[in-house]
Amino acid sequence: MRKLSSKISFLFILLSSSTLLAEQVIPTLNGIKYPTGLKNWRVIASSYRTDNNTQRVILGNSIAIKASRSGQTKPWPKGSILAKLVWKNTNHPNWPSAIIPGEFVHSEIMIKDSSKYQSTGGWGYARWKGESQQPYGKDKSFAEECLACHSQVKKNDFVFTIPAQVP
Amino acid sequence: MRKLSSKISFLFILLSSSTLLAEQVIPTLNGIKYPTGLKNWRVIASSYRTDNNTQRVILGNSIAIKASRSGQTKPWPKGSILAKLVWKNTNHPNWPSAIIPGEFVHSEIMIKDSSKYQSTGGWGYARWKGESQQPYGKDKSFAEECLACHSQVKKNDFVFTIPAQVP
Repeated sequence: MRKLSSKISFLFILLSSSTLLAEQVIPTLNGIKYPTGLKNWRVIASSYRTDNNTQRVILGNSIAIKASRSGQTKPWPKGSILAKLVWKNTNHPNWPSAIIPGEFVHSEIMIKDSSKYQSTGGWGYARWKGESQQPYGKDKSFAEECLACHSQVKKNDFVFTIPAQVP
Repeated sequence: MRKLSSKISFLFILLSSSTLLAEQVIPTLNGIKYPTGLKNWRVIASSYRTDNNTQRVILGNSIAIKASRSGQTKPWPKGSILAKLVWKNTNHPNWPSAIIPGEFVHSEIMIKDSSKYQSTGGWGYARWKGESQQPYGKDKSFAEECLACHSQVKKNDFVFTIPAQVP
């Protein structure tokens, strides 16, 4: 019995050390919750935008990672969450031709649920601005703004992100 | 007793689901092993280079993530591994001002061990080229080439990467 208890304690320690990777949520304004474990998610791609002077890393929750790594993204499965961490571009102080993340701009997520978010192409959209993570938009209709761009990639299930090749 | 066993089974299932994040290794040519779990590591930063038309995501093993998120990077602790996944830049087909990862160029890692890698500033360097992950360099001396650039940031413990702000 003591042996079993100590095994359980050991497992709990291991589990605790992996809670950093858990997908926790905290409430936000616009009905979609911010996944606070988001910065521990795995990478799907990166991108650099010359039109608004930003760069970003695109992460996925476990459902999205499984889908992207197996090419099952047309459509993405229910429960997929894609997240973008976006920064202003700045020059590396010691290597000026390297453009690196400066000021944090916002976090954005897309959550796939074809019935719940039927009116916005099967995806729920949310954005939290700046270091203070202020929810974006005054009401739920802000997602129409997201959809205005994302409709351009309807044939890719409304997703701009193309998973990067990683051996 | 049965209750305890079922609890243990449940914990094992949870643990198994996190094995994707394990840091496995496979042997390579130049004495430093490729961490095959690398693509599951967490993000430290990104960068975009105008001098060689590439972009990259910089990941860290658990020691490096803990250090970077707590600002303990001067010096980085023993066992830290920083990894770069590097791609050629290409334009997004539906949003040309977004420059996204194209052809995979190489994976690179730096491993901190001040005694083992004393001759190269306390870091071991390795690179694997292309989709086929061919080890870079004909012998161990290739690390001198890495050091030639990294010496410019000796005051940052030879590390170019500046951890990106993430709320």
